[in-house]
Amino acid sequence: MSEKMLPIALSNRHLHLSQEDIETLFGKGYELNKFKDLSQPGQYAAVEKVDIVGPKGTLKGVRVLGPARPSTQIEISLADGFALGVKPPVRDSGDVAGSPGAKIVGPQGEVELKEGIIAAARHIHMHTDDAEKFGVVDKQRVKVRTSGERAIVFENVLVRAHHTFALEMHVDNDEGNAAGVKNGEMVELIIK
Amino acid sequence: MSEKMLPIALSNRHLHLSQEDIETLFGKGYELNKFKDLSQPGQYAAVEKVDIVGPKGTLKGVRVLGPARPSTQIEISLADGFALGVKPPVRDSGDVAGSPGAKIVGPQGEVELKEGIIAAARHIHMHTDDAEKFGVVDKQRVKVRTSGERAIVFENVLVRAHHTFALEMHVDNDEGNAAGVKNGEMVELIIK
Repeated sequence: MSEKMLPIALSNRHLHLSQEDIETLFGKGYELNKFKDLSQPGQYAAVEKVDIVGPKGTLKGVRVLGPARPSTQIEISLADGFALGVKPPVRDSGDVAGSPGAKIVGPQGEVELKEGIIAAARHIHMHTDDAEKFGVVDKQRVKVRTSGERAIVFENVLVRAHHTFALEMHVDNDEGNAAGVKNGEMVELIIK
Repeated sequence: MSEKMLPIALSNRHLHLSQEDIETLFGKGYELNKFKDLSQPGQYAAVEKVDIVGPKGTLKGVRVLGPARPSTQIEISLADGFALGVKPPVRDSGDVAGSPGAKIVGPQGEVELKEGIIAAARHIHMHTDDAEKFGVVDKQRVKVRTSGERAIVFENVLVRAHHTFALEMHVDNDEGNAAGVKNGEMVELIIK
């Protein structure tokens, strides 16, 4: 086995909310409640869910991730985009300029999001120590190979190295299913 | 550009029906009506649609493809499988032994399918002349590379060469979305 193995995880549709939008959707002064910790330190799945309403359909019960962020961002798959009736661009997290919006419906109110729906570009979170071990640097693009009957080589995989990150590749449901991988399955980093 | 380019197409969920099941679902002596021809000669999308009912959910309005086949087979994505509550194995068309079943609901009746739900293994249809040109043979496994920001190399791609086939790679919606490809986009055949 190669030395450059790392776990992969499938990201289901989810959203990050600004504190202002949290209060609009859930009530004045509201704070998110932790449902469970995610692999990245400090990040968590919240108890709270909302509905996303697009021109063609609704995604019901979409999970909110915490903590609150400076701006609201919805991450869905291209398949979700068809259901909703929007075309999310494939973008790195935070890069939402010009992306489509939708209505977010919570128990206490609604938010008309002007832009912020993206399909998250596949990426690897890693600690700076992992980056050194693998011989890669932050923002480098690498390839990742999965194994099994649906083996795939993902190209253009963004490396995100930071001393607060834990080693894990993130793909969306379309990508995970296409490769037939399960959460925690080991994949191989390839530097061209 | 490489000489080994071919078009790719996304297969949405669909099913093939035996004549017996057509008559159970649509009525005695019923024959499928052509909606439109598919790329493979003789194959067509039928006007008819049915509902597929699984233990966890229903896929409504699933398109029937014609003509009738010796046995009924349902081809869905892994994402569809989650919605339905079954785990379709990744199989070549016709290889349905031990696969899950479901209830098929038509306007005149229902069929309890014991087995027959698969996720079609990605494959390339090609004329025997194309196979010769590409230097591959029927049943060979090759790789195929897509381009663009979501570039992917699909491994374990089955070559199906026959003098009645037209050149086209078939992937399911999960795989097509994962690669961000559109119907008719050109991809590159790679022989390891």
